[in-house]
Amino acid sequence: MAKVAVDVMLKPEILDPQGQAIVRALPGLGFDQVTAVRQGKHFEVELDAADAAEAHAQAEKIAATLLANPVIEDFSVRLLD
Amino acid sequence: MAKVAVDVMLKPEILDPQGQAIVRALPGLGFDQVTAVRQGKHFEVELDAADAAEAHAQAEKIAATLLANPVIEDFSVRLLD
Repeated sequence: MAKVAVDVMLKPEILDPQGQAIVRALPGLGFDQVTAVRQGKHFEVELDAADAAEAHAQAEKIAATLLANPVIEDFSVRLLD
Repeated sequence: MAKVAVDVMLKPEILDPQGQAIVRALPGLGFDQVTAVRQGKHFEVELDAADAAEAHAQAEKIAATLLANPVIEDFSVRLLD
């Protein structure tokens, strides 16, 4: 059993209004040093795999098939344990 | 300038219907080995800070104040560069 994190973010050239709203809200809450925020999705996937390499490969396929929209989003996969 | 990732997840005892929908969809796409999925939010925050420790501390405060709802969500902070 492996646990894998998949982070899905809008590609850098795609506008991220949620992130921009956070940047605009932070100074009013006393946080003046933030210059940029991008918001994406985070998935924690538990799956049966023979080893870490297989778990990573399966999670990449799942991310490309279902979790991310490759037209507008990039994703990254990392093993948690 | 530091870049920090903040992952916000529903607490384990809170139902996650989005994650459950993904688990149910995966076998139909040929992925049979997934046993659980939890979906959360991922933020990438760029901020001015004197050092890595200050950047981490600021990101923790921002997460607790604005990015996460501490009643139903947990968050984790990690420096990206």
